Order: sequence, then structure tokens, then C-alpha cells
Amino acid sequence: MTTKAPIGFCGLGAMGMGMATHLVKSGHQVKGFDLYPPSLQRFEAAGGNPSPSLLNSAADMPFYIVMVATAVQAQSALFGTAGEEGIVHKLPQGAVLLLCSTVPASYAVSVERELKEIGRGDVFFIDSPVSGGAFRAADGTLSIMAGGRTASLEKGMWLLKAMSAPKKLFIVKGGIGAGSNMKMAHQVLAAIQILVTGEAYGFAARLGLDADSVRKEIVEGEAWSWMVEDRGRRVIAGLEAWRPGVSALTIILKDTSIITSSARLCNFPVPMASAAEQVYFSGLSQGFGSEDDAGMVRVYYPGPVADVKCDLDKETKAAKLKLVVDMLIGIYVCATAESIAFAQQVNLPLDQLHELAVDAAGGSHVFRDVGAQMIKGLTGDVSAWSGSGKRLDDVAQGLSEAANEAQSLKCPAFLTNAALSMLTLAKRTGEKDASAASVVKVWKS
Amino acid sequence: MTTKAPIGFCGLGAMGMGMATHLVKSGHQVKGFDLYPPSLQRFEAAGGNPSPSLLNSAADMPFYIVMVATAVQAQSALFGTAGEEGIVHKLPQGAVLLLCSTVPASYAVSVERELKEIGRGDVFFIDSPVSGGAFRAADGTLSIMAGGRTASLEKGMWLLKAMSAPKKLFIVKGGIGAGSNMKMAHQVLAAIQILVTGEAYGFAARLGLDADSVRKEIVEGEAWSWMVEDRGRRVIAGLEAWRPGVSALTIILKDTSIITSSARLCNFPVPMASAAEQVYFSGLSQGFGSEDDAGMVRVYYPGPVADVKCDLDKETKAAKLKLVVDMLIGIYVCATAESIAFAQQVNLPLDQLHELAVDAAGGSHVFRDVGAQMIKGLTGDVSAWSGSGKRLDDVAQGLSEAANEAQSLKCPAFLTNAALSMLTLAKRTGEKDASAASVVKVWKS
Repeated sequence: MTTKAPIGFCGLGAMGMGMATHLVKSGHQVKGFDLYPPSLQRFEAAGGNPSPSLLNSAADMPFYIVMVATAVQAQSALFGTAGEEGIVHKLPQGAVLLLCSTVPASYAVSVERELKEIGRGDVFFIDSPVSGGAFRAADGTLSIMAGGRTASLEKGMWLLKAMSAPKKLFIVKGGIGAGSNMKMAHQVLAAIQILVTGEAYGFAARLGLDADSVRKEIVEGEAWSWMVEDRGRRVIAGLEAWRPGVSALTIILKDTSIITSSARLCNFPVPMASAAEQVYFSGLSQGFGSEDDAGMVRVYYPGPVADVKCDLDKETKAAKLKLVVDMLIGIYVCATAESIAFAQQVNLPLDQLHELAVDAAGGSHVFRDVGAQMIKGLTGDVSAWSGSGKRLDDVAQGLSEAANEAQSLKCPAFLTNAALSMLTLAKRTGEKDASAASVVKVWKS
Repeated sequence: MTTKAPIGFCGLGAMGMGMATHLVKSGHQVKGFDLYPPSLQRFEAAGGNPSPSLLNSAADMPFYIVMVATAVQAQSALFGTAGEEGIVHKLPQGAVLLLCSTVPASYAVSVERELKEIGRGDVFFIDSPVSGGAFRAADGTLSIMAGGRTASLEKGMWLLKAMSAPKKLFIVKGGIGAGSNMKMAHQVLAAIQILVTGEAYGFAARLGLDADSVRKEIVEGEAWSWMVEDRGRRVIAGLEAWRPGVSALTIILKDTSIITSSARLCNFPVPMASAAEQVYFSGLSQGFGSEDDAGMVRVYYPGPVADVKCDLDKETKAAKLKLVVDMLIGIYVCATAESIAFAQQVNLPLDQLHELAVDAAGGSHVFRDVGAQMIKGLTGDVSAWSGSGKRLDDVAQGLSEAANEAQSLKCPAFLTNAALSMLTLAKRTGEKDASAASVVKVWKS
């Protein structure tokens, strides 16, 4: 039954449309619903079965996927609003329900509780946010982070597998909420590393560096990260690539707010993600919300960075490129620390976070190396605080020089300075010749 | 001789003009110089003796006051530039030289060193930045923070007294640099509390609160600070009061950069001041540099805050006003901690900082009370970490609720979130029922 079972689906946005049409192509009957009629038409054109109403999309469906944008939307779709019924009132006995939206773990937990309260404890609920973008959604090669009861995961496994790449389905221990927490820990990296792309390219433009040289230096060197490579392309392409763009500022802002609001709930410090969030809010105020998040570079440098021509001699240019690299490294170290420390705070398996993020949108060479050392240290091997790899003093010194130069150029450097404060706190409490990985102890203190 | 001795003066800006003309009115011969001819004309109209050149203003002058805007300007005025001589080459043997500009302490120290190196160790040099604004400058009632050798201070005392209010002349122990460091520690409060005025009024506007109610709540209650009262007036007055305004954004930005660059030099964390600095840089990018710093409210709320009409019921309004107050209190606590901890780092007498700042532009009720308790704790009385007064948990809880509400309103809250990170770090390391004052230990850790 299960392999070609009918599936209900709501939320046919960029991601949801890809996921739903991929399931259609794989031979499933998918009844999809969206409040936006053109999406329903596109879905029908792609071979899907458009549903005339939300409730109709759930009736008699043994499997159901929710892929709306926010927890607020999910709540009204699932449980109804203003006296109207929701999806859960129509699902058949023993249905499998996947919540794939990015939501706070506390919200996923509340769904499980409310299902029981209204007598639908029979529903096999899975907390399974996804990552990977619209192309991988349409390919069925997403990363999925799934948590839930064992029975639910067993029943939903074929569907999770149908949408994810072979090694990108992560079953996260910890039940409902664990999937969302894993996604959140990953998004700490994404939230910071999207903004640092603008901070680095804006700083580089003020330094008089041409964007192509900056890109080459970053992409081929130790300052590589998935985000800086991906968003850097659109930072350089400029305004035309931002309207409408690939990933709207409002999307990463929503995920960033999940991080900071969850952190407040558990009394955990997230100085890096919350600095990023405030800058995103200020971009929103300036009208950048619906545009690509790469457009945040305008906060740092008003003109097109691609217009900067470099006329520096080779040595000066190399020294300035090093400042950009050192800025990135310092921020990556703190982003890595914040992600891993927060993951430990919410009891996630750190090795799994590392495996997942190193090869996803949050990945960076620093996360790969320094992150691995942080995890060693946090899981009991104290040699990580002094052992090999980058030195705390070197990373702090490089970042301090970048901050100094940004200041003299009157360039805002929000993440640079937030990271410098954390590295400085680490230096004050740390031992001599401490490793860069040891900065994570400031978050955990 | 000294009481009516001739005085050389350079830097006839808003502050310098007031200081120089006050000395004229007090019966002194003052030969003043400025690069801007209209200032020289104004000085002459006020009875001063305009000097045809910088060097002429120094020749044969037993007393000389430098009141230019920056350390870079001071350096070229004092020591000359591009082969030209400067003031110190013209001053007579044993002249008294007051540097009243706000400069990094490290710069004041370098002046003393360079005087010796060029064989002018005979000059009685005093590091004596001032505070109080143009009106008090013209009244001769400034606050002055003076450091230097005892002999220098003795010789310059009458002149320092002539420009300052009776109880506002602070002789700071520690020699050259101590005056500048004292000013810097005070400016930590000013830099943060100017920006928090915009953050609080912008947040309040988004909450739907009318500005007059906000002002009354702040000015009459525990959230009072000198800056929020003073700048609040111009925040409410709006655009007309900002062009040209009373105190340009570039001025507080310059002082903020002195704080963060000095902090980098001594490996001290200043997360609050450096968050403020980045927001100021972003205001500068948006073209607000020459306008009054009260205009920074636009970063938080685009429209005139005075246009917001409040139609909330009494209870809701009181609850929202409390959020604004709690935001301010949380930020003041961290501003106070950053100022006092940094002052201790640079070996300033903390009681003197408290006496000075409590009654100056950096003053707040929180600085008066929680600041006094921090000083008690930092100088050895550990009962301050648990004793009476505000609780760390309460301050953190109030700030967290403000951060939560700002987030749901999509209002940037840079200082709120920077402060929340520090309070959260303090809660993690602190004892149960810790005092709010104990947050200062995070900076000192």
C-alpha cells in the first residue's frame, strides 16, 4: 500500500511545489492545496491533483505533508481557526502527518500535545523540517531532519526517503522537536553566514578590492563557506539578481527569529544570530524584505560591489584580501561555536549536526575543522582546548585588525564586532596558547 | 602674572568658541586660531584676538589650549605636518599646554613622549578633555577631567578652574592619559544612552504608544537618564530639530570609535559600545552624519514618532510602557557595567568616575544605584553580588520580554539584544538570586 499511497499536501510555495511535484513524478497520487490559486494551476499543470479546499486535501489521506511558511500558518491549517475545522479533523484513523515547515521545536511539541488533547493521538506525527532549496526539493534530494516516535518514523520512512537524498535523511534522536531543533542549530550557521557574505563583500569594496579577486580568494581558500560561495554570486550580480531573487530576506529572517526566540526560552546566549537578526530587521525597514537576502550587502556598501576596480599593487592587495579572509574566519569560528553550543544546550547529538551541516548550506571549512574540535572538547576530550589547529590569539588578532580597518573606513561591521567581543571574552578566561575551538566555552559557561 | 596671562587657543568650533570667548569675558587676552575664517570673525566680534596663523597663535604664549576635533587634527596642529612647524615649536620655555580635545589616552601619552623626543620636555602638558556642551563651555562651567604631572597640574590649575564649574574639575590620578581615559569611560555611557533613546522611542512608536506618554514615563521614573531626557526632546521634535541640530552624529561616533579602538588595544570586550558604533556607522551610510544624533530614531521607526496617537486602553498602555521601561533598564545596567569595568581595566579611580558621571551627560538612576553597587563589588565587597537592589533575573526577564515584543513587531533592537546576551551569560555563571550589579563580572571575567 504505502509505496503508491495517496498523499495530501498543503503549502505549494517554492519548496512545497517542488516536493509535491516530485512525489507526483514518482508515481504517487498527490492532492495538493494552496490558498494562492495560480499555485494550484501550476500544480495541476505538473500532473498533480489540485484540491478545492484545505479540508478536502486531508479527507481519507493516509499520508499528509504540511509545508506552509510559518508556525502560525501551520497551526491554522492543522487545527483550524475561528470555529472552522483543520486538517487533523479530517485525517483518517492512523494517518501519518509530516510537518516539514521550519518551526520552533516548542511549536512541534505543542502540535503533538494538541493532537492528544483533541483525541487524535492515533495520528503518527513526524517533526521533519527540510533543507536544500527549491531545486533539490524538485529532485527529491533534500536534506531532512526528522524526529518523532519510533512507530511514526517507521510508518513515514518511505515518504521521508522519497523526498531526500540517500545520505541526507537524518533521523534525530529525541522525539518530536528534535528535528526542528536540528534544523535550528543548522540555521544558526546559515543566518550568520548569509549576512557575513554582505559584510565581507561590502568591507572588501570599501578596501578598494574588486569583487572577482575577493571571490577567488574566498572560494579557493580557507575562508570558503557554502553561503559565501552561493550568496557571493548574487552579491556580485547585483540588483537584477535580487528582484525577485532566489531566497527572500524574509525567509532567513523568519528562521533567525526562531533561533533567537528559542534561545530566550532556554536562557541561552546567541549574540551572533541576534546581531544578524537586528541587521535583517533594519534591512526589512529599508524595504529589502521581498528581495534576495544577498541584497543585504547594501547595508555595508551602497553601490554595486562589481563596479569597484582594484588599482592596488600586488602586496597591498594581498594584505587587504587577508583582512577580508581574517574577518570571515573570525566570524565563522563564532558562528560554529554558537551553533554547536546551542545544539548541545537542546540535547542534540553533536556528531550528527556536524555530519549534516558540513555538507549542507551551513558548511564551511572552519565548521569542518574547528567545529569538529569543539565537539571533541564539549564531549569530554579537554585536549581540544589546547590541541592543534587554529590558535585563539591568531583568530582574535586577525579579526581585531579587520575591525580596526573597517572602523577607519567607517564601514559597519556588526558580525565582526559581535564575534570580536566573544573572542575577547574567551581570551580573558582562557589558558595560554588556547585553541580557537576553546571560544565555544564562553557560550557554555 | 597667571591670572591675566595671555592665552593661545586653536579650534574655535562650537565648544572651543564658547571656551575661548568665556576666557575673553573673564578678562584674559586670548589669541585664537581656526582654519575656518568665519569662526575667526565671530571670535573677533566677541572681543577675542584673532590670530593670522596657527604658529602666530602660539608664539610667546605662556598658556595654550588645543580644542580641535580629533587626534589627527591635534597631531598636525601640535607638531606640524609636511615639513611645517607646529604649536610646540613656537611655545616659550616652560609654557603650559592643555589638550582639551577628546582623544584616545594612547594619543595623549604619545604627545608627552614626542614632546620629550623633540627636546620640549620643558612644556607643562596637561591631558584635560572636557564635557558639558556648548552652553556650559560659554559659561565657564564645564566638567573637566585632567591628568598630568603634579607640576603641570599646579601651573595649569587656575586655567582649568576658569573653564569649569566649582565641583566639576576632576583631577584624575594616573598622569597623562588618565584624563582621556576618564572621559572615555564616561563616553561609554553617552554612546550607548544616545542610541538607546532612539531604540526606546522607536520601539514605543511601534507599540502604538504616543511619545508624550513615553517621555513622562521615562523622565519621571526609574528609567530616567540624562541622555534619554535630553535627546528624547529632539527625538520627539523630529526632522526640524535635527538639521542642523545640537550635536551631530559624527561627534558621538568619533567618541564611540575611541572607546572601541582603545578596547581593542587592551583586549577588553565592549559589546554594547561596539554594537552602538555599528548602528552609528549605518546611520552615517544613510546620510545622517551631519544631523543631530537624535535622528538615529529613524533606524528604528521610519515616521515621526510624534505622529503616533495612542488608542490603547489604560491597562494595555501601562503594560506596553513597562516594556519600554524594562528595555531601558536592561540596557542601562549593561552600559553601566561596560563603563565601570572598562574604567577598572584602565586603572581609573572608580569612585571618581561615579561622582563625575552620575551628575553629567552619562548619568542615569541605574548608574547611580546599580553602578554604586558594581563599584562596591569590584573593589572587594562581594556582598554586592548578592545584596539588595535590582535582581539579575528580573532585569533579564524584563529585557527578554521587550526583545520578544520588538521581534514580533519586526523592530530592530540592537542594544536590547546585545544587553540580553550579556545578562544571559551572567545568569549562566551567576549564583542564585544574584544582584543585577553582578553582570559586571562577565566583562571582568
